[in-house]
Amino acid sequence: MSDSLKYFFDPSSVVVIGASGTAGKAGYEVLVNMQANGYAGRIFPVNPSGGEILGLHVYRSLQEIPEPADLAVFIVPAEHTIGPLRECAAKGVRAAVISSGGFAEVGDEGARMQEEILTVARSAGMRIMGPNTIGLVSTPASFATTFYPLGKIRRGPISYIAQTGVFAGLELQWILTAENFGVARMAGLGNKIDVDDAEVLEYLSQDPETKAVLMYVEGFRNARRFLEVARKVTKKKPVIVFKGGRTKAGAARAMSHTASLAGNDAIMDGAFRQAGIARLRRYSDLIDIAKAIAFQPLPRGRRIASVAQSGGLGVVVADACEAAGLQMASLSPRTVEKLREISASWVTISNPVDMTPIVWRLGPAEAYRTVLETLFQDEGVDVLAPILLASPRIRAEQYSFVPELAARYSEKSIYVSFTGEKQSFDSARSFLETHSIPVFASVEEIPEKVETLLRCREAMER
Amino acid sequence: MSDSLKYFFDPSSVVVIGASGTAGKAGYEVLVNMQANGYAGRIFPVNPSGGEILGLHVYRSLQEIPEPADLAVFIVPAEHTIGPLRECAAKGVRAAVISSGGFAEVGDEGARMQEEILTVARSAGMRIMGPNTIGLVSTPASFATTFYPLGKIRRGPISYIAQTGVFAGLELQWILTAENFGVARMAGLGNKIDVDDAEVLEYLSQDPETKAVLMYVEGFRNARRFLEVARKVTKKKPVIVFKGGRTKAGAARAMSHTASLAGNDAIMDGAFRQAGIARLRRYSDLIDIAKAIAFQPLPRGRRIASVAQSGGLGVVVADACEAAGLQMASLSPRTVEKLREISASWVTISNPVDMTPIVWRLGPAEAYRTVLETLFQDEGVDVLAPILLASPRIRAEQYSFVPELAARYSEKSIYVSFTGEKQSFDSARSFLETHSIPVFASVEEIPEKVETLLRCREAMER
Repeated sequence: MSDSLKYFFDPSSVVVIGASGTAGKAGYEVLVNMQANGYAGRIFPVNPSGGEILGLHVYRSLQEIPEPADLAVFIVPAEHTIGPLRECAAKGVRAAVISSGGFAEVGDEGARMQEEILTVARSAGMRIMGPNTIGLVSTPASFATTFYPLGKIRRGPISYIAQTGVFAGLELQWILTAENFGVARMAGLGNKIDVDDAEVLEYLSQDPETKAVLMYVEGFRNARRFLEVARKVTKKKPVIVFKGGRTKAGAARAMSHTASLAGNDAIMDGAFRQAGIARLRRYSDLIDIAKAIAFQPLPRGRRIASVAQSGGLGVVVADACEAAGLQMASLSPRTVEKLREISASWVTISNPVDMTPIVWRLGPAEAYRTVLETLFQDEGVDVLAPILLASPRIRAEQYSFVPELAARYSEKSIYVSFTGEKQSFDSARSFLETHSIPVFASVEEIPEKVETLLRCREAMER
Repeated sequence: MSDSLKYFFDPSSVVVIGASGTAGKAGYEVLVNMQANGYAGRIFPVNPSGGEILGLHVYRSLQEIPEPADLAVFIVPAEHTIGPLRECAAKGVRAAVISSGGFAEVGDEGARMQEEILTVARSAGMRIMGPNTIGLVSTPASFATTFYPLGKIRRGPISYIAQTGVFAGLELQWILTAENFGVARMAGLGNKIDVDDAEVLEYLSQDPETKAVLMYVEGFRNARRFLEVARKVTKKKPVIVFKGGRTKAGAARAMSHTASLAGNDAIMDGAFRQAGIARLRRYSDLIDIAKAIAFQPLPRGRRIASVAQSGGLGVVVADACEAAGLQMASLSPRTVEKLREISASWVTISNPVDMTPIVWRLGPAEAYRTVLETLFQDEGVDVLAPILLASPRIRAEQYSFVPELAARYSEKSIYVSFTGEKQSFDSARSFLETHSIPVFASVEEIPEKVETLLRCREAMER
């Protein structure tokens, strides 16, 4: 079945129903986005007024279009969907993204319209994504159906499946402007009357562009089928899920948002675990974990080493590691000896390594470089989570040894945080992340992420 | 006893033992900081070489100083402390901050030196802060003993007591450059051989500049005494604690950091609760909670209302509120009616309020203004946690209605987050926080903070 999804993620031509010549309107911005992303297929805007938009010829009706298109994108109100959809069916359009809300999530009449859409689509063999979704992004195809003003979308190894269309809107805008990793495919499934999580997950499991699949889910149309698919996919690549609606209040909200039945959360928890899915507790981890996967190999084990300028933060990182089920690595005799040589006589060498005396002796750049290299070389260390110094005393580019060491010791993973001064932090973060070193706002966030990634790795090694 | 602490937080003169003429050295930077903060008392730098530093006359010895000083700051190695300390005692110096490490936290010889210091101080009636600490900050006195290059320290209502001196260094640097709230007093207690948490807490409880006390603790010298004091103080102002060393790994680390015995964590948890102390789970909350308190009144109750541009985020906020023990406020019939007037016909009005149709109709600024005002007016709402739009479509200053409404309905508290675009977020956050509206990175962080603040309020109303 998944073969037909290529008409969504790699269409050779696309019809836009409800195209508009007015900047700011969804029917205009969707065309801007397609052009901004360099979509190379043919675009057929449809609007009864005809004319031209953004240099594209506008067709007054579907009949006028000279060929059957792969995909139709609907930017029209719910009640104006069924007419053009029948015409698409008649014309042999293979797939449709239906963006408008006002279907099952608002009541019976919406549910009826949704059923009608499905009947028309089924009888024509046309696939439907939505309704109630912004749709999708597919950077390898330079394609997007989103009508948020996003510009060129950064390509990368992370794919998202989201219940809510907004992932291809506001959340993607945040990823593009605040983060440095890129995305491969993004599908906002909305009310999921046809294409659902299980099918997209199966498609992405075979997608060479997708290194990991992250999901925002409110409920499943067919939970059993999804778990069956996930059980196989998690052996090949990480599948990481944040599920909305885990409390009563959240579940009620999910019902009114996408007509989703949230289901019993504890049962879901166990089912996810059995299927090898790593579940997230924080929504914002859908971005932070993506960054960790995009930039670094999965951790090879749970022995972690850290370095800190402050004794207090050393305690914080030790607590966070143990609480997350990681293990503070025992430093090898060779490591201890090497660190003792460059530290002060009164300092006990242990993990996390106390940087203060070493920085006093060698200056920050040389101190961090030497200590990190020593930790990378220690066979008893799987993961490094150093707290670096954000300071005018060390320029961002002076941290170039971090990506260099990470590349040399590529069997290990490194996740970085900082203490110090904000402006230096911003430039160091930007420098490091454009060189594939993920940077986190606080060291205490890292251990839980490492543990999540270890669960993914364990699932792959079943 | 607490009276003598005024020599730390409001000294009329200060001796700096180990003053240096070399920029970058601690003995120089401490003088730079005192001058940068506009300290109006007399400063007596001491260095055997004499001369002048930063326009200050340098004394070759303590004997040369023409008067007994209130405070001595020691910027000399551990083994060079006891000599000058005896001289301070002889001269009638009232208090001393001892910054160097190398005492009980590194071994027996250090513990012995520490004992010797205490004996000298006790017999002279001199108070000691430290050793192993950067010391303190006191913005109402325009004073600081920190040798981190911080410049003028922003004044505000938050006071910190920290086990680790670094709070008056790297963490304060972060607060000054990344945050917008200010601090009143900050005491890094280090090894706590004399002045301890209980005493500083008592002092701060009577300090009109201090609205709330936040603490980073690894262990107590006298836990019972601390809890007794805290039980009283928490009736007057919030006392909020993050305790390092809650796991075995963290406790071991705390031992080597400040020679602290972490104690049994579960027992500590119950004892804190009984004393009305709100305990934090995340170290970074020492900053985020401070911001919430600095800018807003404590929440008056647990009924929370939110608004979101995305249905998904509406689910996330509902889940986070219920998980934190808050209650999604039931909107009053008047609120529902007012919101229905400006929303779309197919939208169910509920909490969190779905902003999308309202923004389509009124534009973002007018939409958010109207909805927030309606929620502020609803008697069933105690706390607002709106997710605002970070977008080039709405300039930071257009959010001026947020501080205006918060001031008008000052019995309620508001905590803001955003979705959208990073640059717009940065300017909106900066604008709002300089107008006393706290902004958080993610909406899901807010409910837990509100719940922490409610515990503080409940303690005050015992």
